[in-house]
Amino acid sequence: MRSAMDALLDPRSIALIGASANAGRIGGLPLELLTRFGYQGDIYPVNPKYEEVFGLRCWPDIEAVPAGVDLAVLAIAAAEVTPMLKRCHARGVRAAIVYAAGFAEEGEEGQRLQAEMERFAADSGMAVAGPNCMGFANLNTQAYTAFASVFKTAPAQTGPGTVSLLTQSGNVCAAVYAIGRRLGLPFSHFINTGNEACIDFSQYLEYLAEDPGTGIVLGYIEQLRDGPRFVRACQALQRQDKVLIALKAGNTDKGAQAVRSHTAALAGDRRVYAAAFRQLNVIQADDFAQMAAIASLATLRDRQAGRRVAVVTMSGALGAILADKFIGAGLELPDLPPALQRTLREGIPDYGMVGNPVDVTGNVVNDPDFVRTVLAALATSPDIDTVVVYAPGYMLDRMADALVETAGAHARLFVAIDTGQAQCRERLREAGVAVFDDLGLAVNSLAPYLRWCEGRGRRRAEAGAVQPAAAPALPCNEAAARDWLAGFGMPAQRVARAATAEAAVDAARGLGYPVAMKILSPDIAHKTDIGGVALNVADDAAARAAFERLMAAGASQAGARIDGVLVQPMARGVAELIVGATRDPVFGPVLTVGLGGVLTELYQDVSHRLLPVDAATAGEMLRELKAYPLLEGYRGKAGDVAAACQAIAAVGQAMLAAPAAVGEIEVNPLLVQEAGQGVAVLDALILPATA
Amino acid sequence: MRSAMDALLDPRSIALIGASANAGRIGGLPLELLTRFGYQGDIYPVNPKYEEVFGLRCWPDIEAVPAGVDLAVLAIAAAEVTPMLKRCHARGVRAAIVYAAGFAEEGEEGQRLQAEMERFAADSGMAVAGPNCMGFANLNTQAYTAFASVFKTAPAQTGPGTVSLLTQSGNVCAAVYAIGRRLGLPFSHFINTGNEACIDFSQYLEYLAEDPGTGIVLGYIEQLRDGPRFVRACQALQRQDKVLIALKAGNTDKGAQAVRSHTAALAGDRRVYAAAFRQLNVIQADDFAQMAAIASLATLRDRQAGRRVAVVTMSGALGAILADKFIGAGLELPDLPPALQRTLREGIPDYGMVGNPVDVTGNVVNDPDFVRTVLAALATSPDIDTVVVYAPGYMLDRMADALVETAGAHARLFVAIDTGQAQCRERLREAGVAVFDDLGLAVNSLAPYLRWCEGRGRRRAEAGAVQPAAAPALPCNEAAARDWLAGFGMPAQRVARAATAEAAVDAARGLGYPVAMKILSPDIAHKTDIGGVALNVADDAAARAAFERLMAAGASQAGARIDGVLVQPMARGVAELIVGATRDPVFGPVLTVGLGGVLTELYQDVSHRLLPVDAATAGEMLRELKAYPLLEGYRGKAGDVAAACQAIAAVGQAMLAAPAAVGEIEVNPLLVQEAGQGVAVLDALILPATA
Repeated sequence: MRSAMDALLDPRSIALIGASANAGRIGGLPLELLTRFGYQGDIYPVNPKYEEVFGLRCWPDIEAVPAGVDLAVLAIAAAEVTPMLKRCHARGVRAAIVYAAGFAEEGEEGQRLQAEMERFAADSGMAVAGPNCMGFANLNTQAYTAFASVFKTAPAQTGPGTVSLLTQSGNVCAAVYAIGRRLGLPFSHFINTGNEACIDFSQYLEYLAEDPGTGIVLGYIEQLRDGPRFVRACQALQRQDKVLIALKAGNTDKGAQAVRSHTAALAGDRRVYAAAFRQLNVIQADDFAQMAAIASLATLRDRQAGRRVAVVTMSGALGAILADKFIGAGLELPDLPPALQRTLREGIPDYGMVGNPVDVTGNVVNDPDFVRTVLAALATSPDIDTVVVYAPGYMLDRMADALVETAGAHARLFVAIDTGQAQCRERLREAGVAVFDDLGLAVNSLAPYLRWCEGRGRRRAEAGAVQPAAAPALPCNEAAARDWLAGFGMPAQRVARAATAEAAVDAARGLGYPVAMKILSPDIAHKTDIGGVALNVADDAAARAAFERLMAAGASQAGARIDGVLVQPMARGVAELIVGATRDPVFGPVLTVGLGGVLTELYQDVSHRLLPVDAATAGEMLRELKAYPLLEGYRGKAGDVAAACQAIAAVGQAMLAAPAAVGEIEVNPLLVQEAGQGVAVLDALILPATA
Repeated sequence: MRSAMDALLDPRSIALIGASANAGRIGGLPLELLTRFGYQGDIYPVNPKYEEVFGLRCWPDIEAVPAGVDLAVLAIAAAEVTPMLKRCHARGVRAAIVYAAGFAEEGEEGQRLQAEMERFAADSGMAVAGPNCMGFANLNTQAYTAFASVFKTAPAQTGPGTVSLLTQSGNVCAAVYAIGRRLGLPFSHFINTGNEACIDFSQYLEYLAEDPGTGIVLGYIEQLRDGPRFVRACQALQRQDKVLIALKAGNTDKGAQAVRSHTAALAGDRRVYAAAFRQLNVIQADDFAQMAAIASLATLRDRQAGRRVAVVTMSGALGAILADKFIGAGLELPDLPPALQRTLREGIPDYGMVGNPVDVTGNVVNDPDFVRTVLAALATSPDIDTVVVYAPGYMLDRMADALVETAGAHARLFVAIDTGQAQCRERLREAGVAVFDDLGLAVNSLAPYLRWCEGRGRRRAEAGAVQPAAAPALPCNEAAARDWLAGFGMPAQRVARAATAEAAVDAARGLGYPVAMKILSPDIAHKTDIGGVALNVADDAAARAAFERLMAAGASQAGARIDGVLVQPMARGVAELIVGATRDPVFGPVLTVGLGGVLTELYQDVSHRLLPVDAATAGEMLRELKAYPLLEGYRGKAGDVAAACQAIAAVGQAMLAAPAAVGEIEVNPLLVQEAGQGVAVLDALILPATA
């Protein structure tokens, strides 16, 4: 049976309440579009003022409309919306789109109206889109419910499409549609979500993941209401091998400020969004033209592609410029294997190049058989994923036959970049070759698309069975935090607690001098600041003295509970990490790993992941750090990366198991010791969630 | 009197030797262009096979041509070139362009031919361009000497132009010309330099700096032959307020490899090129479309512009996306001052924004008087340099009158970015408004252009009177290196040398314990590796023991001359820097400053400058480091930045004064102590130049 979401996004009949005979008005434009582009379902304009609009019979009220309306479009004022929804529901209408502004984005009265609408939608089961939205379009059925003139001004789409637009801004929806149509992108759904009172972005995304008409989603996000649902929707897209290309606004404070004013929604933490996108193989876009260009590449995703690119050109200069840009964007131009180079050298003169870029030289372009040989050799090489031809237009024209033929014979991605105005562009596109005339756009869209291709098979670590576990009473001291983390797989640590000077001496002897000693208190977070840490304690006498000094420092803190001292061997390591787990308001628990110390913040050399994170993913996080070579033994001995990964995963597991009262877990520093020697937790904190 | 370069680049008469009647051949195409576009000078085709080509009388040989030929274009084979140059010279021809390949890029015989040509050009004073080049065009006189079909296929230029193309690749020249013409860029010179046997890139640049017809130069560089001459040419451009936009190939190893194969020239060190470009306010471009877009902005350089941008939009979402991109590109969107915000708020509803971005809202666009008020207020605000309007096309059309009027009244840079297809684009362009339809390109060209605007007044530090100074005999020990650096303004250092254990004790007492002690030897570069360093030497006994240990370590190095030990107080500081001066094969002496330690290389947090560098420029270099906040007291005390700048400048001065035998000077680490406490040189090296 068709769902309410089907009625909303693939309506078989539409009533427009507040219909107008004027195509310049929001109650008129959708009617013009529906009639102009030949929507095959029933259209019921509703307005007592008219007998007929756009050649359609106009009905005085919804009660007069014959039964069987899927979708009501409400072009009426905010205050009238919920009463009208009720009347529609009574007539069996299953879905509605609410254009009106004046809801949550405009003060208390608006919030009340929105809450009322939400309640009715939840109770009735109607799928209610908006409010404060521009409406939708289904380009495969010509069901236009958006008051967007772009459908009249952009190049018209004649056939069916598979690219769906899902945006939190009407202007963005229209802008991307216009740019996409100029590139010839075939669209399916055009969805502007508005205030998302009843249906949020992720719910539409779930629908599109299952929608057979959608293969690619272009999303514009200011703020997600439901991070976990977004994660599940993205996983559903991944299972279907569909692509989500997302532009997230608010990536700088200024951007976030503009968004906040716009939708009364706080932009989430950009780093967490970026981490979530990476984990879910969502392509994060920077601007509209790039989004559209990536989508056009993604329409070719049945072709094998990846980041090992071979470049064919007929100019050393063009090859050099392209190589610089591709490598700068993180792609690879592997040297071609010797056998392949020999094949190429048979036809390429000495002043050309057979490495990569391949410079076949201008003369060779006149030899279509050899061009075919070159392209076929690259199309079948196991060392190459993607073949890019970069040429002046008139040279590309001479290669067109060979390119079309090779692309027909081999399901590998071929890309042509034209410096001029090649005549063959349409022919190439029809043959499944991606064509660009702008090098910058080509690189900026190929790089993220090819990363998507590489991430295609990969799936995010799934949560194991994490049992909720009671955390120690908060605040807790470092020893309690350590004990708790040990339960989640933190590698064993050599530490001891001591409540007396003699116990401290015994502990230090047991661990071996020199040791570090720290005051233990749930009430003292910054131990160093109050003189609560003694380093390099060398012998019994020093240990006794340190104990007394630390206890005195603790006693000087009014009201602080003192639980003795912690004794730990002085340890040397390869590098210090910071490992922290926090709760993101949108996505929930998030893990952060970085190089420890003062430079972490200056260089922003950190990696984030939504939890769960297993040890393998922890390794990925470490390898993302620019400082990672330190752990591999750059200028010194290699570190115990395996133990570090285990420690990182343990912090993540602890956060998943922690009760909601735990807001943050931090191990800082985590000292990574030489390979085989494990890690040393030098401090551990469990912090309560803030209200 | 007209120079030979004038005869080459602004010829009054042209002989084409090796003329062809076929426009598809290199001896024919220039003749077709000259006649088609109406060159007003005399044209003399030369070829005994023809009586007439392209309606022009054809001459049997150069001797038959009437006297007074400015420029001979040689469409003949490499081996025939120099003999023909001699015959041309004998007929009073002052300049020549050599198309032929087969010179230095092709083996020994080619190198011999090129050397012969160079000699003749030098002896005769002829201006000989090429060989292995595509030729030139002067778009202001229609003097086409290039065999480039792009002049036929790109949109024709009707009026005079001021944008000159100067490239080391013919394909690049043609590609940039085609893209530029599509953008409506008005060109003056089209110069493809080829092998640069007799005239190099920098010499053309000197010409263009003085050429009244050139205001903007688009340069493509694979390798400069003469860095210092390039520097002088750029300084001449700066004096004339002309803009050089340069694309440098070979920015990655792959790019450099492609260039190497192409021109038999090694690509220079990319970081030094980038540093030189910054210092000389040369705009470094990434691709052709961006080059052309920057040039189109630079045609508006009589308008005041800078990096403090105000954005006007009618969509919070568009404003947020633009703000993200601008800030990501290093521009500023300052909050507007309160008085200005109040003015804006008079017409902008509550759901709009008056900060920056300014969201005037869609309704306001229908009120042209208020739009004019907004634009005029931003055009006159002292807190803003540049005004950017970002709007869907139909909204931009509604604002066009106000934009044209405001741009006419205020000489500030106005930029319009259109998400759709505004009708008003040409009108805006004619009114001096920059117009983009691609957000990415707008940002990627505005950001470097606005940096250029800010650097416009600035001049590079000029060399003071640096006297050549004899360096110590090489290799030298650390003490000798320190003594030598002291002569160039290195802040005074507290160190002492000691040849005996007792002298070491005296020195340590004088300096104050604890001290560091190091073996002194011109033959031991890595002292730590051989146990030649003692740290934290605490008292007389330790000093004696350390002295003996260090001397023994020195003695263990076969053949090493031992000059005693160096004693230095143990010093604590805020940060360690690396300061080094090297000789770049293209640009000469270069200074490098970075944060010291193992992370320098991993984070590549370094700054480079061509010398000379004064203390103020040294400060700029430090501020470019991501780690700079450490020196300013981030998480600790502030460092003695002034002393660090003095030390950096001293290393630079020393390099300028050093004889050619000195290849490198390095102070590493330079410990920056707390403000007022100076710097401590912890090691200093002077290294010989490698052969």
